[in-house]
Amino acid sequence: MKRRDFFRNASLTALGASLLGPSQLVAAGNAKKRGKTAKNIIFLVSDGMSTGTLNMASLLMQRKYGRQSQWLQLYEQNLVTRALMDTASANSLVTDSAAASSSWGGGVRVPNGALNVSADGTAHKPILQKFKAAGKAVGCVTTVPITHATPAGFCVTSKSRGDQEEIALQYLPLKFDVMMGGGLEYFSKEKRKDKADVFQQFEQAGYAVVQDKNTMQALNAPAGKPVLGVFYEGGLPYSLDAAQDAAISQQVPTLAAMTQKAISQLKKNNKGFVLQVEGGKVDWAAHANDAGALLYDQIAFDEAVKVAIDFAMADKETLVIITTDHGNANPGLFSGSKTNENFDRLQQFKYTNDWILRGITRDFSAAQVIERIEAAQGIVITKDEAAAILSHYNQLDEKGIYNPYKLPFKPLALIQSAYTSIGWGAMDHSADYVELAMYGPGSELLPPFVKNIALHQLMLTAAGISKA
Amino acid sequence: MKRRDFFRNASLTALGASLLGPSQLVAAGNAKKRGKTAKNIIFLVSDGMSTGTLNMASLLMQRKYGRQSQWLQLYEQNLVTRALMDTASANSLVTDSAAASSSWGGGVRVPNGALNVSADGTAHKPILQKFKAAGKAVGCVTTVPITHATPAGFCVTSKSRGDQEEIALQYLPLKFDVMMGGGLEYFSKEKRKDKADVFQQFEQAGYAVVQDKNTMQALNAPAGKPVLGVFYEGGLPYSLDAAQDAAISQQVPTLAAMTQKAISQLKKNNKGFVLQVEGGKVDWAAHANDAGALLYDQIAFDEAVKVAIDFAMADKETLVIITTDHGNANPGLFSGSKTNENFDRLQQFKYTNDWILRGITRDFSAAQVIERIEAAQGIVITKDEAAAILSHYNQLDEKGIYNPYKLPFKPLALIQSAYTSIGWGAMDHSADYVELAMYGPGSELLPPFVKNIALHQLMLTAAGISKA
Repeated sequence: MKRRDFFRNASLTALGASLLGPSQLVAAGNAKKRGKTAKNIIFLVSDGMSTGTLNMASLLMQRKYGRQSQWLQLYEQNLVTRALMDTASANSLVTDSAAASSSWGGGVRVPNGALNVSADGTAHKPILQKFKAAGKAVGCVTTVPITHATPAGFCVTSKSRGDQEEIALQYLPLKFDVMMGGGLEYFSKEKRKDKADVFQQFEQAGYAVVQDKNTMQALNAPAGKPVLGVFYEGGLPYSLDAAQDAAISQQVPTLAAMTQKAISQLKKNNKGFVLQVEGGKVDWAAHANDAGALLYDQIAFDEAVKVAIDFAMADKETLVIITTDHGNANPGLFSGSKTNENFDRLQQFKYTNDWILRGITRDFSAAQVIERIEAAQGIVITKDEAAAILSHYNQLDEKGIYNPYKLPFKPLALIQSAYTSIGWGAMDHSADYVELAMYGPGSELLPPFVKNIALHQLMLTAAGISKA
Repeated sequence: MKRRDFFRNASLTALGASLLGPSQLVAAGNAKKRGKTAKNIIFLVSDGMSTGTLNMASLLMQRKYGRQSQWLQLYEQNLVTRALMDTASANSLVTDSAAASSSWGGGVRVPNGALNVSADGTAHKPILQKFKAAGKAVGCVTTVPITHATPAGFCVTSKSRGDQEEIALQYLPLKFDVMMGGGLEYFSKEKRKDKADVFQQFEQAGYAVVQDKNTMQALNAPAGKPVLGVFYEGGLPYSLDAAQDAAISQQVPTLAAMTQKAISQLKKNNKGFVLQVEGGKVDWAAHANDAGALLYDQIAFDEAVKVAIDFAMADKETLVIITTDHGNANPGLFSGSKTNENFDRLQQFKYTNDWILRGITRDFSAAQVIERIEAAQGIVITKDEAAAILSHYNQLDEKGIYNPYKLPFKPLALIQSAYTSIGWGAMDHSADYVELAMYGPGSELLPPFVKNIALHQLMLTAAGISKA
């Protein structure tokens, strides 16, 4: 059997309904071989995505929607170059998101918690500042605060990722072309500690400021007019919960919608653009061992991947990078007598564990807890299990006030494992080498194993910027 | 920067001391491009290897020995073709080792527990029978019983992987050229339920039978004389424990030594050979959440990879396949204030958790438990933790006899997590898509995403056998 025939048998026909026709595939393959300069770069990060997250989201999409994830379709169709990426930071085998984004953003490993600042205080120029100086339009969209570690690592330098009020102010003079996500509390005069009206400051500086989905959708700012979009306090709601809530759906755009709008704004620049897209709440869901939140936000990220790839396939001058900054919680679908049936429960999930636990109060009965979980996820837990969850709601702080940060995410995840067959290794980041894929011009620069810092120079090289 | 310069900067110089010089690298690259027929195939399986297992073993090797794993060196030097592999079985998203080996061995997904037999009873001819019929020398070496699921899936058909006494008898007439591993109890007349002297039957059928390392090392059987090597009851001891025990080191060969001997026997056949090499106890260690057992057996597997690659680089006619059959336990090195220091404790481990727990008896004091663990692994647990472990030794069965299968592996792993920063998602297989790498002629046939069953035809195609 010839290579072409073998490949078709092994992979393409197995794909079933594919997104790409043969002519697109050939065209894309040719574009890849030309090795030309990337006019545009779209860098997509599913934050804190362990390999099991990618795998389970793909399985869920296959079983629920009858199609493979966009990410893995690219593999099935042999359209991307892949690597394993070593994600360590300057001071730990396990990075946080600030050091991870800095490794790409500044090209240097910094200690966890820092944004492009080394332990000795040396600052490293963030990559979007370099690209902006080279004439590119630049931007970030995310499902967490736009001032959060992953976008910030491409934009600014700071010893501490935690100072998000200050980071919001650092963004102001940069006039980056599109910055959209959550984090209302760092811009609103009502929410900021210093009571500064940062939204107004952005408007006065010439930004178009949008704070809801419809205004964002309608936006059509001229090239050069920077856009700030802030749609929610903290992170944006999880995809699963947002889809059940008409008010939220009206207020908050999806990651795919933000990506689409960002591209349509950024491409107005004749010299091309560089955009970071972050599925930031994948990481938050992993920290909470919240399976529904995790997998449906990974699917929402995958829809943003599709927006980016569709653009890049038509455009033919865009390098698309798809990866994560580190593993988190190393979830897996584990063996058991009912693994398939258990996993298929995820298809019926309406709400996240986050939604379940935030809605339970001290005065709930066990029966009410059972009812709430069944309504949210179709799982009927036992009375003992409900009582175990409820017991955590009696743990008040020294002032007698319940601490919402102590919601029993871990006990609920442990109980759910018996119903979903999904298990978790921890509630924090892991040292796992992670998956990385590149599509389009510049992808030929990717070796099969890279340190995270190598991507900084790779992006500049791909765009034909040798020194910036 | 040119592609060549970029690659050198990003990858090769970062490698430090590399196994391969530039001339070997170029030669290997040329061999890969020629796309010629594979005379030989070496199929290496680290059984039950989650991505964290590969990652942590590589990190341990870097920090302890100052070198990257052989597996990931192949990536750093861009010598292999990689894929993600979907490992599901016919009846579950999560495969067992019998169905997984059958998918490669017979080219068809069968239900968990079966060896090349579908649910309707249809049997599928195992790949080593096909290769043997085509004139190849064939064999398997493993660290678990040679009758266990992974070697058996390449050799025989059976509705039940559990009937290892019967599988030993099925091997007899096949006269495969090299079969080596553990499983004394399925060959010895003293251990078999039917008291048959199966070792004698193999000798009478013309096999050279070896039962200790030195005899194996000295063996130099003529081409065509089949070799059976059985070195221990059950699986071979874990690498970590074996290295501390002179008697075991004298008795039992390493996986790398078995691989070396198998190749030296098999290559005597003019028409080439096909060899399966299994690091089978990586899976057993993952089931037990036994970090020392897991990582040092993964390193022992990596040494077998080196033997195979060294042969293939010199030979230039050998396809080497390196993979796992499924994830297991999804371990990870997780974030914390002392992650690096905790992980570095693994460098001092002398014995596995298996060794620790098998040596504890009901009459141990907490102080003795503490002492044993400190002597084995340099970790000083608390009195409460020791008491918690000891409590499991008072749980006797209905006859008042302690059940060794109920050793407290999970409680010990949970206690150790605070000292090693290693966490575990479960004690069973996972659905994770797994890592797969190929080196040499035929590797160009590998698409970036494959189902496990695709490897069956790929191996036949690579060897130029269109129908067998």
